Amino acid sequence: MKIAIYGYGNLGRGVECAVRYNSDTELVGVFTRRDPNTVRTLTGVPVYSAESVLDFKDKIDVLILCGGSATDLPVATPTLAEHFNVIDSFDTHARIPEHFANVDKAAKEGGHTALISSGWDPGLFSIARVYASSVLPEGENYTFWGRGISQGHSDAIRRIDGVLDARQYTVPVPSVVEAVKSGECPTLTTGDKHIRECYVVAKKGADLNRIEREIKEMPNYFADYTTTVTFISEEELRQNHSGMPHGGSVIRNGKTGLSGENTHTVEFRLRLDSNPEFTASVLVAYARAVYKKAVRGNFGAITVLDVAPAELSSLSGEELRATML
Amino acid sequence: MKIAIYGYGNLGRGVECAVRYNSDTELVGVFTRRDPNTVRTLTGVPVYSAESVLDFKDKIDVLILCGGSATDLPVATPTLAEHFNVIDSFDTHARIPEHFANVDKAAKEGGHTALISSGWDPGLFSIARVYASSVLPEGENYTFWGRGISQGHSDAIRRIDGVLDARQYTVPVPSVVEAVKSGECPTLTTGDKHIRECYVVAKKGADLNRIEREIKEMPNYFADYTTTVTFISEEELRQNHSGMPHGGSVIRNGKTGLSGENTHTVEFRLRLDSNPEFTASVLVAYARAVYKKAVRGNFGAITVLDVAPAELSSLSGEELRATML
Repeated sequence: MKIAIYGYGNLGRGVECAVRYNSDTELVGVFTRRDPNTVRTLTGVPVYSAESVLDFKDKIDVLILCGGSATDLPVATPTLAEHFNVIDSFDTHARIPEHFANVDKAAKEGGHTALISSGWDPGLFSIARVYASSVLPEGENYTFWGRGISQGHSDAIRRIDGVLDARQYTVPVPSVVEAVKSGECPTLTTGDKHIRECYVVAKKGADLNRIEREIKEMPNYFADYTTTVTFISEEELRQNHSGMPHGGSVIRNGKTGLSGENTHTVEFRLRLDSNPEFTASVLVAYARAVYKKAVRGNFGAITVLDVAPAELSSLSGEELRATML
Repeated sequence: MKIAIYGYGNLGRGVECAVRYNSDTELVGVFTRRDPNTVRTLTGVPVYSAESVLDFKDKIDVLILCGGSATDLPVATPTLAEHFNVIDSFDTHARIPEHFANVDKAAKEGGHTALISSGWDPGLFSIARVYASSVLPEGENYTFWGRGISQGHSDAIRRIDGVLDARQYTVPVPSVVEAVKSGECPTLTTGDKHIRECYVVAKKGADLNRIEREIKEMPNYFADYTTTVTFISEEELRQNHSGMPHGGSVIRNGKTGLSGENTHTVEFRLRLDSNPEFTASVLVAYARAVYKKAVRGNFGAITVLDVAPAELSSLSGEELRATML
């Protein structure tokens, strides 16, 4: 399977690494909107201008789109789905139906397969919700995010006057996680479920009390959460907070029996050293499924919910039944 | 969707209950090899003789086979797959390829869809292994069973002279689970991962030391495990050990990055109050997928690995994308 990367940031570099773990994939190249001569890849794979991508129509089985959900993917995925089998990690939950419709139209017109919103949430977490909800129709789903870096919240802190740099960790409240894991079904807001831990590097002489207050009172971002603010040095930030860990869990508690007398807990949990590298690994596995569907002529837009587990694997059905079932 | 139950033990009763939670399913009846007049169902659904099942060929969309894997299903599933869309919970891992081949031949000849080996292991645990292995090709899978009753081990204890009744719980070793959850990849036997807790009711005057020794030294069943034996009264067994709890987890630790520098942990965990009721709930969800595939003309044998998450749900693709993705 010949794949190519469109957009070369953290996610694109993650895909470049993930390909090395999948012996049935081959990386054709990286496409960038920057000047290709200024981009050095991790593994020496060639870099091309994004403008030249159509010249590669017959040389790429699946194009993996590694742009952002805010402005890149809403344009890039439908545009490119007309010419390539594509996969993206579009994660603006509220706009998924609209994005799906746009991509579906383009992919069908071009005779290609396009999988949108892959990754872990949306992605593997969505799958966990559907499996658990289908098996236990009477029940409640809970999604916890973290412990992990929220890029949006870190950026929001950086915009405060007197802040040099910042990292924000989203952390599930341990007692709430334990209650849900034990089968309880409380009604919870996102703020009930999570704490926001902020590590802030302040400019010399800045008013730390004011910065802390501005963070904690920031509407939408922090006001509805238990928020902790810790001021640290630039050196400490670099040493202890430069990684991109993340994770979380989807938990469903459901009832069975003649009158709901038995409770079951289904939990899917991720602990990730590197959010972009794991997301990239999910994209490469789903690229394999996209390719299989395209070969069979299943054109149009799909999501992770439309892909059977066997389609993700490089093993045959026979091998999977003998070793994994 | 019209479903029927073939075999009416704990699993069959679980399916009878599960149907009540799925408003798109309707239970046609229960088929038994016993005298139908001697069988009372939980919900008053009609009972028919197993011999009359072919009279219902046009009245059943999916027949759910609730027999045992040792002798029932190897015969019943291929025989019935020629005449019905069927689903079973065949769980003898080593014989799955042979069972699959037999069922596939019969189902294709009869123009039906037959899903084998549904449930949670094989079943949801198999799916978890395939997802995690496909996303993280470089890594190790660990499966822990319990805390839960092992019927086979309980039976083995009951066959010892002087034993009136017994329950055996399989229990994962907490420190081993924690090590694996934290990202370690030790090499482990099933015996390293699990403890066997035995609760035994002895006959009056029986030699308890001999019974304990015979349990702990029993080859295959107990000799390779840390085994605890606790003698209890009949009353205590009935009060504290009459349920059928089970569960366990599938954990995969995998590496990503240019040279495997980042580790990720994927965990799928179940905590079940009632093993047969949960297994039955899985069967009913997969019966829906069997029906959808049969309507599309996808005949032959399949497993849970061939079913996309969306096919398990009563919601449309549009509803799933809007609410679950």
